Amino acid sequence: MRAAVLRQGHIVVDNVADVVPPAMHSLVKTIACGICGSDLHFVHHGGRMVELSRQAGGRSTLDVNKDIVMGHEFVGEVVEHGPHTTGPAPGTVVVAMPVVFPEMPPSAETAAGVGYSNEFNGGYAEYMRLFTPLLLPVPNGLPAREAALTEPMAVGLHAVAKANLVAGDTAVVHGCGPVGLAVIAALRLRGVDTIVAADFSPTRRALAATMGAHIVTDPGIDDVMDVWLRTASNRPLVQFDAIGVPGILNRAMMRAPKGSRIVVVGVCMEPDTITPIWGINKELNLQFVLGYTPDEFAETLGHLAEGRIDGASLITGSVGLDGVAQAFADLANPDQHVKILVEPQISSKSPRIS
Amino acid sequence: MRAAVLRQGHIVVDNVADVVPPAMHSLVKTIACGICGSDLHFVHHGGRMVELSRQAGGRSTLDVNKDIVMGHEFVGEVVEHGPHTTGPAPGTVVVAMPVVFPEMPPSAETAAGVGYSNEFNGGYAEYMRLFTPLLLPVPNGLPAREAALTEPMAVGLHAVAKANLVAGDTAVVHGCGPVGLAVIAALRLRGVDTIVAADFSPTRRALAATMGAHIVTDPGIDDVMDVWLRTASNRPLVQFDAIGVPGILNRAMMRAPKGSRIVVVGVCMEPDTITPIWGINKELNLQFVLGYTPDEFAETLGHLAEGRIDGASLITGSVGLDGVAQAFADLANPDQHVKILVEPQISSKSPRIS
Repeated sequence: MRAAVLRQGHIVVDNVADVVPPAMHSLVKTIACGICGSDLHFVHHGGRMVELSRQAGGRSTLDVNKDIVMGHEFVGEVVEHGPHTTGPAPGTVVVAMPVVFPEMPPSAETAAGVGYSNEFNGGYAEYMRLFTPLLLPVPNGLPAREAALTEPMAVGLHAVAKANLVAGDTAVVHGCGPVGLAVIAALRLRGVDTIVAADFSPTRRALAATMGAHIVTDPGIDDVMDVWLRTASNRPLVQFDAIGVPGILNRAMMRAPKGSRIVVVGVCMEPDTITPIWGINKELNLQFVLGYTPDEFAETLGHLAEGRIDGASLITGSVGLDGVAQAFADLANPDQHVKILVEPQISSKSPRIS
Repeated sequence: MRAAVLRQGHIVVDNVADVVPPAMHSLVKTIACGICGSDLHFVHHGGRMVELSRQAGGRSTLDVNKDIVMGHEFVGEVVEHGPHTTGPAPGTVVVAMPVVFPEMPPSAETAAGVGYSNEFNGGYAEYMRLFTPLLLPVPNGLPAREAALTEPMAVGLHAVAKANLVAGDTAVVHGCGPVGLAVIAALRLRGVDTIVAADFSPTRRALAATMGAHIVTDPGIDDVMDVWLRTASNRPLVQFDAIGVPGILNRAMMRAPKGSRIVVVGVCMEPDTITPIWGINKELNLQFVLGYTPDEFAETLGHLAEGRIDGASLITGSVGLDGVAQAFADLANPDQHVKILVEPQISSKSPRIS
């Protein structure tokens, strides 16, 4: 089958081995797969990311010198199941958490990430092997392309759940890329009545308002914490760092009010410098978050299907496999795109605006 | 009156203005005052500390180019109260939170720290002005010198309270200086059944065991996290950083198990580098803590008075005002001392071992 392969730091289209699903797994034909910011970073810093993960106890066996087919925000159509395995009927459109199990019985210790593996390709390929018990049929009426947003939107739902919000909390969201927008959508679903969001990009600020931010600001003109201070300084605050570049966390700590919380959901891949005395003096709490639970993933699909999260507005382009390399380059410009979908069954070289 | 004054980075003994208590404040004759690690750091880095605090919204008006009489871990004897003010009878031995109010009515906005102020001297002086409603009589039977440990021990009680322990939690304590020992005592009072503590100093390790640590380790020989892994790896963990030097927090993040918590109670004055991806991958929670509540302060005094915290064992020396400068130097050697008390009413040039 054809795939967009990460090979020695470059995305190339090539033929890769066909997928043959074993027991408890299914063959799924990829309809669409979103490009994630982590994938962009992985192209250039994958080796360092794996090394850092291992240093801290991670069990990754990923070899960045071998081919990797990325893509973990996918939707597809069931083709067939492995031996002695039952699941949704062939033809069913499904999403799934991006995890498979190379050894039986399944265990957390041996789980492998679909799209971050030398063995299990992600959605930048025509077909995938997925874990059958995790397949979730896309409810009637939700376009498959929008269902591809389940994964990134679930990240926001999880981050907000880990924030342990209480009544009266207000929120500041630093960064309105896909992660920040997902956080904003989840905050709005929780009923937070003051969501202040910041991004340099007017496109992304407009989307932040669409997703539910009450106030949006260009941090180059009016700092988000100044906006918050004018708006809600008498109320408790949770800041969400959805940018993930060095310096953001420290600045959030500097501007944080006493006793407030910071949820770190943007993945900063490099070492970062903080000023502990600021944390101490103000008794700050920092919660780092990753991923989502199976329940949160399923709940997010429901929100998209019922229109409680407007997924369609986030999709700003789509490409075939031949266009993946260019799409990666285009995503460096935050004003042009939010989420580009890879559609392996179609042929298009350059991203088209949806 | 006489005082040990911090003047342009040096401790000198000099006469300073006598204390005249205004309304709601009392004149208290200092019996003893512990030397805190923060004081040691402040001598060399006070200017930077004040600058960092202001950058993050602190309202400190402290001028490190003017005289400061430090000392915030004090016990004293009531001499008299200000006009129209009632409080414990003269002669009563008292401790108090180190905070006074230059403006009436008292408010958090105008509170000043006793011992970190150009105006309100701390316990390295013969007398202090204290806020009368905060005076707590030392219960009968508790030697005054031990009551001076109320403040540093309350720091431990507060840190453990902010850790939000649940049944089954285990604890690792990095560093067994006064702060780490206070944390250990508080953990033991909470009934934590697995407290693993680390320090390079054999003296401090012995004290950690006295205060209630179940296992103590020399991190140069057997890393505390390796010890914990062998002992309690199947149980939830809270790490306490009671060292407060650059690199400790990042190492705690590197070795932390998934979903665990780190309470930062050691005050790291310098910028520090962390690896956010470790926090993200393991969904760590970092809680920075400072000080204590009035209730925690009073509760700590009760623990000392009832023998539930063994304060006497922590006092390793005492000096008169003439010995303060030498005591600051001696405290750089962690094997020799834990807590040195300044006793302004006595005369002794070099610390004596209690």
